[in-house]
Amino acid sequence: MELPHPEAEVSNPVIAPTIVLVRPQLAENIGTAARAMLNCGLTEMRLVRPRCSLPDERASRAASGADAVLEQAGVYADVVSAVADMNLVFATCPRERDMAKPVITPQSAIQSAREAMSAGAKVAFLFGAERTGLENDEVTLADAMVPFPVNPDFNSLNLAQAVLLVGWEWARAHASPPQAGRRPWRGELATKVEVDGFLTRLEAELDSCGFLRNPAMRPAAVRNLRAFFLRARPNAQEIRTAHGILTGLVERPHAGKVGKSRPGRHDPEA
Amino acid sequence: MELPHPEAEVSNPVIAPTIVLVRPQLAENIGTAARAMLNCGLTEMRLVRPRCSLPDERASRAASGADAVLEQAGVYADVVSAVADMNLVFATCPRERDMAKPVITPQSAIQSAREAMSAGAKVAFLFGAERTGLENDEVTLADAMVPFPVNPDFNSLNLAQAVLLVGWEWARAHASPPQAGRRPWRGELATKVEVDGFLTRLEAELDSCGFLRNPAMRPAAVRNLRAFFLRARPNAQEIRTAHGILTGLVERPHAGKVGKSRPGRHDPEA
Repeated sequence: MELPHPEAEVSNPVIAPTIVLVRPQLAENIGTAARAMLNCGLTEMRLVRPRCSLPDERASRAASGADAVLEQAGVYADVVSAVADMNLVFATCPRERDMAKPVITPQSAIQSAREAMSAGAKVAFLFGAERTGLENDEVTLADAMVPFPVNPDFNSLNLAQAVLLVGWEWARAHASPPQAGRRPWRGELATKVEVDGFLTRLEAELDSCGFLRNPAMRPAAVRNLRAFFLRARPNAQEIRTAHGILTGLVERPHAGKVGKSRPGRHDPEA
Repeated sequence: MELPHPEAEVSNPVIAPTIVLVRPQLAENIGTAARAMLNCGLTEMRLVRPRCSLPDERASRAASGADAVLEQAGVYADVVSAVADMNLVFATCPRERDMAKPVITPQSAIQSAREAMSAGAKVAFLFGAERTGLENDEVTLADAMVPFPVNPDFNSLNLAQAVLLVGWEWARAHASPPQAGRRPWRGELATKVEVDGFLTRLEAELDSCGFLRNPAMRPAAVRNLRAFFLRARPNAQEIRTAHGILTGLVERPHAGKVGKSRPGRHDPEA
């Protein structure tokens, strides 16, 4: 998988979270979401396989002046590429799903986002399609799930309304200074493309050695593995170390044979 | 001005604020506002001279299931009659106006609303027409102005979005505090001896394959590895999976040789 290199962006740090709309079906919702974003000071929108292609008259009308957000919106083929250069990703959802993944409030997500961004990280919030939401594999890419604690008997938010709530919490938190005594953000979080690169390689090795040989169990096993790694919030050095460990393990001399192994490609001591 | 006496309602206290849309122009906005209200647990909507008459197909479609809110919506000839039975009224507006009237944040308004309602009062929030907003005479009827502290360069909120923000602040304040100590993922945390057992085995394999061959760097490398695993807070199943992965990787057929590997000792599918 070829992904753009994230370091090209570092000299131009993003100062607000990116909003990623996944398979949005209605142009009006894209426009209203753009308006809500700009209301709250957010400007970077990304679209994954939108049903309409921009520019779209209905989207522009709904944006009601937030055209700049629509004009700059990037279009992506899948969530993996849309979040490739992100360091921290939140998956919004109407309700908590049964996945091994932290579940946090929008307020906590924004607090984490602010801390991460003040250390130079890039942060994205994912929003699923109007009726179907995010697929499990897409939620798997996120560091945490962010359900909206609304009426449990009627919790399906309009897409643009959900975007507004994230923007509102961002603007609301921005209005007050960060809380004193906050936990310093440790090191630079790895980008999603770095984490995904390692996990994809690990999965290939696990396929190769037969660990993932049961097709029925493979999807859940892969999701759990990814959830585990994301929970640890690896930084870039840790991903390099993980590569080195994997190289060391798979290229070791055949079992039973003692001797110096070949140095790994990702040698942590290099 | 003769107003109905509010105490008639006390035996049947209202438990959420009333949303008053003043001269709404678009049926879709009425429907989306109804949906946003029900999302946040608000059910009482009042309409002052709406442009469309309910029931309206576009409003119902936008309500997306919140039909009950629309069906119960009262229609009034003016703001005076719409708020006649209210005890506390807030006028939402994009920005502060030059009027001798308190200006408070949505959060403060909700806080006041909760206090008033817990004493049996009825509370309403006014929202002006899409383009023109509330007239000064209508704002005059309110106890306070509630501007939304959003992007000063782009502060015109969609009507239904503004309704959502009031509802959200209501739901947010109403929500019970987060449960203490709740684990965001399922499963029991692994015991320290389980985690240590895996890490000790991993270190032995890494010694064996040469990854930890530099004695000067070994202590820090081991510490970092342990820190990474602890940060992920693995549960017992995840430690078993990690054992299985390690077994799979180190017992795989020699590199380049394709074939079914021996099953690992810690087979996750066993």
